[in-house]
Amino acid sequence: MMKVSVNGYGTIGKRVASAILAQPDMSLIGVSKTSTNYEAYHAQRLGIPLYVPKESIKEFEDAGIKVMGTIEEMFRDSDVIVDATPNGVGAQYKQVYSSLGKKSIFQGGEKANVADVSFSALCNYDEAVDKKYVRVVSCNTTGLLRTLCTINRVEKITKVRATIVRRAADPKEVKKGPINSLTPDPASIPSHHAKDVNTVLKDLDIVTMAIVAPTTLMHVHMLNITLANQVTREEVLSTLSSTPRILLVSGKSKITSTAEIIEVARDIGRSRNDLYETVVFEDSVSVKGNELFLMYAVHQESIVVPENIDAIRAVTGFRDGLKSVEMTNTSMGIRKGYLV
Amino acid sequence: MMKVSVNGYGTIGKRVASAILAQPDMSLIGVSKTSTNYEAYHAQRLGIPLYVPKESIKEFEDAGIKVMGTIEEMFRDSDVIVDATPNGVGAQYKQVYSSLGKKSIFQGGEKANVADVSFSALCNYDEAVDKKYVRVVSCNTTGLLRTLCTINRVEKITKVRATIVRRAADPKEVKKGPINSLTPDPASIPSHHAKDVNTVLKDLDIVTMAIVAPTTLMHVHMLNITLANQVTREEVLSTLSSTPRILLVSGKSKITSTAEIIEVARDIGRSRNDLYETVVFEDSVSVKGNELFLMYAVHQESIVVPENIDAIRAVTGFRDGLKSVEMTNTSMGIRKGYLV
Repeated sequence: MMKVSVNGYGTIGKRVASAILAQPDMSLIGVSKTSTNYEAYHAQRLGIPLYVPKESIKEFEDAGIKVMGTIEEMFRDSDVIVDATPNGVGAQYKQVYSSLGKKSIFQGGEKANVADVSFSALCNYDEAVDKKYVRVVSCNTTGLLRTLCTINRVEKITKVRATIVRRAADPKEVKKGPINSLTPDPASIPSHHAKDVNTVLKDLDIVTMAIVAPTTLMHVHMLNITLANQVTREEVLSTLSSTPRILLVSGKSKITSTAEIIEVARDIGRSRNDLYETVVFEDSVSVKGNELFLMYAVHQESIVVPENIDAIRAVTGFRDGLKSVEMTNTSMGIRKGYLV
Repeated sequence: MMKVSVNGYGTIGKRVASAILAQPDMSLIGVSKTSTNYEAYHAQRLGIPLYVPKESIKEFEDAGIKVMGTIEEMFRDSDVIVDATPNGVGAQYKQVYSSLGKKSIFQGGEKANVADVSFSALCNYDEAVDKKYVRVVSCNTTGLLRTLCTINRVEKITKVRATIVRRAADPKEVKKGPINSLTPDPASIPSHHAKDVNTVLKDLDIVTMAIVAPTTLMHVHMLNITLANQVTREEVLSTLSSTPRILLVSGKSKITSTAEIIEVARDIGRSRNDLYETVVFEDSVSVKGNELFLMYAVHQESIVVPENIDAIRAVTGFRDGLKSVEMTNTSMGIRKGYLV
């Protein structure tokens, strides 16, 4: 049993904690919280051990939240620490993890050099095996890499030109905008996503342009991929529909938007309406000469969660990437094929 | 003096009417209305003659709105009719215009075959001269064509791969969505915009992907243009900044979004905060080999208005396209260079 703790219990941390609880080969030592917010109360209700900074113990106990110990005590009891602290904070914690000799998983909000390797399970599981520090790339980069590494199995990709329409805020966020604007993110080209893809697919010719739109549900990517040789639409669809962590939505099912995709996630009883899968609009998959076009949606809150689970296995020396992906998928109900 | 009437006084019609009033060589015979809504009251306040369907005269007079006559009487008194009726209605009216022997201008919501030529002033003014029926392409296609014909003057374009993030509704619309979704428009590729660009640039290799986002202010286009030969960023910026109907916004001015662009339009006293110009994010103009990348914003309510004015001149035999564009720009305060 791998003993894992999660530092930070926000959007990503709480989902990673739930996923760890579902794994047959992992035990959750606990999670850390710095704020006595609704997520702390919910963790307590779930029976998840809560660890807090030493100076916050009284605040938590005054708020009626039972504290198991200090964050450092949680770290000491862990084999692997998943850092799910806010962007940039993970790099500061790295010194603590390092001084305790603990392996750790960072999120895509950290710079690539925080870790030995940037990670996307379907692309480079092997590179992360036995590494000390692994960084799971961001939600958008995970969406890009999962798709590109899958298409690369159909035919060699020579060039990618992608645009990313980002959701403005997560559903729980109340202080972020825009509420009525399209905001290039940034106006300068390429956006950082291209560079982030290159941390894993090092020689790929990729340019990304990104813009923020006022919606909370999912990102959408629009890809123009140039291939070394022409492929058929059927070949691409066949590979996409047989790849785990990729789902297709068909125009026939009247699913035309991210709103309807999330409605399906709610209907089928997904925890927190999460969609760990990349959701490809089947009708968008088009071929013109040796170019491939497609559009897909990325659930920003959850797509990196299975990748975190696989990264935990990799750093602890579990060598079979395909097996890890399968274990993660089975335990979390992650599918392939068609959403409906 | 060209005698012009505007059939339909909604988002486009009311703006075209205002623009006609500003032209030294045109007189506005009147506008038509079918609904006794706030726009009808405002037209009356402005002293614009209102014409209505025969069967609606009593309804308008009961509502306290003075009617000058029937729509058909308005048509008879006109040299040119600008059709600004809802999508598809223009094609039905064409029979009426034709039976009266009147020249007419249609909007981009009509199919291309409604007219002898699809029109974008900076691309193909000459083709519209003396034609009987001209169709001004839609706001998105106007944005694409204005930009592409300008870039074509720098270097021959061989390929365009564009994504379009559409505003969901106009500011005045209260029954349209999405309110929280990204909706491929449509999921199938290409979107109709590529085909519409081909009505003017007939042999251009262009693929467009479009998506709707919940915002009302402007569309944004993200272009990847392949050129026959490499150009410098400076050459492109120099041409963009010296082309009328194109404005640049610079990161230095802290304009980072469509919201701030529209705020400037309000600050500088633009009527209805209209921006007839294509607004290019200067920071986005990038060159990689023989590829050019850029992002720009399109004000969907007003970008086609100057094109309608030029189209009126063209069908009445005014041969000098550059002169028409200059007259339209001067009369409407349309600029080039930098927005701020």
